Amino acid sequence: MENQFTRGGAMYKKVDIKDYEYLKNIVGIENTLFENEVGHDYHKDELGGISNPPDLVLKVDNAFQISQIMKYAYENTIPVVVRGSGTGLVGASVAMHGGIMIDMTKMNRFLDLDLNNLTLTLEPGVLLMDIYKHVEEQDLFYPPDPGEKSATIGGNISTNAGGMRAVKYGVTRDYVRELEIVLPNGELFTTGGKVVKNSSGYALKDLMIGAEGTLGIITKATLKLLPLPKYSISLLLPFPSIELAIECVPKIIKSKAIPTAIEFIQKEVLLYAEDFLGKKFPDKSAEAYILLSFDGNTLESVEADYSKVANLCIKEGALDAYIVDTEERKKDVWSARGAFLEAIKASTDLMDECDVVVPRDKVADFIKFTKELEEKYKVRIPSFGHAGDGNLHIYVCKDGMEESKWEKVLEDVFEEMYSRAREYKGLVSGEHGIGFAKKKYLFEQIGDVQIGIMQGIKSVFDPKFILNPGKVVK
Amino acid sequence: MENQFTRGGAMYKKVDIKDYEYLKNIVGIENTLFENEVGHDYHKDELGGISNPPDLVLKVDNAFQISQIMKYAYENTIPVVVRGSGTGLVGASVAMHGGIMIDMTKMNRFLDLDLNNLTLTLEPGVLLMDIYKHVEEQDLFYPPDPGEKSATIGGNISTNAGGMRAVKYGVTRDYVRELEIVLPNGELFTTGGKVVKNSSGYALKDLMIGAEGTLGIITKATLKLLPLPKYSISLLLPFPSIELAIECVPKIIKSKAIPTAIEFIQKEVLLYAEDFLGKKFPDKSAEAYILLSFDGNTLESVEADYSKVANLCIKEGALDAYIVDTEERKKDVWSARGAFLEAIKASTDLMDECDVVVPRDKVADFIKFTKELEEKYKVRIPSFGHAGDGNLHIYVCKDGMEESKWEKVLEDVFEEMYSRAREYKGLVSGEHGIGFAKKKYLFEQIGDVQIGIMQGIKSVFDPKFILNPGKVVK
Repeated sequence: MENQFTRGGAMYKKVDIKDYEYLKNIVGIENTLFENEVGHDYHKDELGGISNPPDLVLKVDNAFQISQIMKYAYENTIPVVVRGSGTGLVGASVAMHGGIMIDMTKMNRFLDLDLNNLTLTLEPGVLLMDIYKHVEEQDLFYPPDPGEKSATIGGNISTNAGGMRAVKYGVTRDYVRELEIVLPNGELFTTGGKVVKNSSGYALKDLMIGAEGTLGIITKATLKLLPLPKYSISLLLPFPSIELAIECVPKIIKSKAIPTAIEFIQKEVLLYAEDFLGKKFPDKSAEAYILLSFDGNTLESVEADYSKVANLCIKEGALDAYIVDTEERKKDVWSARGAFLEAIKASTDLMDECDVVVPRDKVADFIKFTKELEEKYKVRIPSFGHAGDGNLHIYVCKDGMEESKWEKVLEDVFEEMYSRAREYKGLVSGEHGIGFAKKKYLFEQIGDVQIGIMQGIKSVFDPKFILNPGKVVK
Repeated sequence: MENQFTRGGAMYKKVDIKDYEYLKNIVGIENTLFENEVGHDYHKDELGGISNPPDLVLKVDNAFQISQIMKYAYENTIPVVVRGSGTGLVGASVAMHGGIMIDMTKMNRFLDLDLNNLTLTLEPGVLLMDIYKHVEEQDLFYPPDPGEKSATIGGNISTNAGGMRAVKYGVTRDYVRELEIVLPNGELFTTGGKVVKNSSGYALKDLMIGAEGTLGIITKATLKLLPLPKYSISLLLPFPSIELAIECVPKIIKSKAIPTAIEFIQKEVLLYAEDFLGKKFPDKSAEAYILLSFDGNTLESVEADYSKVANLCIKEGALDAYIVDTEERKKDVWSARGAFLEAIKASTDLMDECDVVVPRDKVADFIKFTKELEEKYKVRIPSFGHAGDGNLHIYVCKDGMEESKWEKVLEDVFEEMYSRAREYKGLVSGEHGIGFAKKKYLFEQIGDVQIGIMQGIKSVFDPKFILNPGKVVK
């Protein structure tokens, strides 16, 4: 059987010319890329190290096309991977088994902005940055704020993306009201509704959120919106050390102020961002910073909150407190923060990332631990992250290290970090997901019972294991 | 095989004296009720019509006991139902197949109030009213606010209970950070953590929430808390008609004020509550009312919100606007609201409830429709509910109707209501769940594809169908 082969234990059919002919008729030849036409961008996502070409890329326009593609793929046991902007960091949208890649970026239409119910219905290929623009025109607010604004909302839902405003507003999961899904066998269903409450059977909508495209394909989503807060002010607090800075965070939380975001910044990373952006940060006299934002509908309430936090932090060792209230200054500060990932990436030849989340009062200890690992393994490990919600982004940098040594160092450092996160009762991923790269650490953390259940759930949705095979669960 | 029998297609073993001897040793004889010792309260939940005795009641003290019980039940294929306070309204905790009932009410300990992470870890048998008291002592706030304060938190999580403050604060799901679960085969696992973000594998925690005790047994939970808002004020708005009252609600939402709660009240139901409580409501001059609450950390922001809403509603036809700001007055108003269910119950010999949730801008139409049904079927259908989140509580009252006629009327009225809810893109249950009583309407709504997936998920968790069989899914 020439066109059959074993990949990962399953018998997948390789896409051949007959499949190509059939599938290109669904989306049109102008939306089909076959074999050599498939560009390198489609082989990988945003973090290096994991790469494989799909046999065929189909740029879809609607759910019906997706349903037809899946019916065919299901009948013929062809693996299918769904891709948005490809900004993922764990290889979740890499076609590890080849097959069909469905490119969702053309499904980027806004369908309904409902002012009575404060909801936005849209296609999964809409970019995060376009959502903000679209709803702010109506004085509305989509709170989730992941760093990568060119990600699609479908990708955000599939990873349960978090971002900076999670301290006050929660994560993507908290803003998804309804999903339309195409199953691996091509069937379509809708789960949830334009409703606040839902106790109507098992939480299939929530199961789809964060499933990284392994259970079904999101073809439409309805998001919950909030009124846009009238006032928003940021506060930049310099500290003599990163430990002192981060140790303030649980105290801020305990003080019952509710910041929108609490980010920690290390001078080292700030300097990379200045280099990368070619732009100066307003202050770099200190070793470390906490950057906070506050929002609300009266100036009084916002001022009360930030004054309380500024006073508290100065008492706890902050060197000063800069109020960032002009639009220009806000842009300077937050664009530096927004460039950290790209800046660290530009500072080295290769890196890998650890996206653990730990209880808020363990963040300082965890960062201290990464400094010890830097010493122990003689490797650079810059980090930044969401001090307010315990989610860290830690980068192990290759810096030209010899390949075989690098692999060993990376494995050992990762093993130590994830094992320490488990000790602190943290989790493997706060917002980037498991994908292909972090499966080992998920398995180590949650053990056979939960993995067994997850694999069982996978089989229920996708009995032939054709949809994004080899991701999240085996 | 004398001790084997078929119930609902599955072969369950009837609890015999040997089982009793084994199981009573796990929890102690003082915590065991067998056959005739099982009181009538254990046969049913809060809404009439569904009743069946368990063979054995076991009052458990800890997760280890539960794990041992489940191992035994699994090996012997004995059905098991978990019960908290028994305040459910859809028969979810009724032992329809007999077997073992696990009474969780003794597992009611607070385990950890973590001020650094703003979380509360507790056992599932803690009552909702005790949670409020416990956290308010620390100036903290558990936002979900279901009407029935003597429900257990385990029950609240199992139904994804909503309540009145959902408009601003969301539902139980939004406040569950971590769950410890015993599976039907006795295995134990923990899902989630004391963390804000989580993208670590499939959302098993979310799947457990709202599963009505059919997938696993919750033995410990960690809840997210918020700082207690400093100010809280209610606003009572009389209207000449219920339609006019409810039609204001989408306009309030559109105005971008964010009330904590928006309830609608009909004069008829108010009078039942006065009778039931033997206490006068502050005003009953009008046909209908909207009752709102607002909270915040500055008086200015709360005042700004309620003034805006009061002015808007007066423009839209409200007869007046009463500000309810003293503790005593607040208690008068909200205790009347809290008594509606019991008051309607006391007004008739038997009733059944419809807990649909519809988009906010369909609430007025839906209530109008129930009035038409009252006329058409010559049956009393009082209602109240959460206008702000689209969740209605509608009661069809028997009022001494002849039994066979009642059954037909109830079936027809329910069929019409759920079918109208589907038209409005609403869902079968906003907060009370599906349990035994609403399965038919869930099936009609979501169809074979989703039901098939839900049944598949049930099989993954509970391959022998011993845990709360016949609930939610077949």
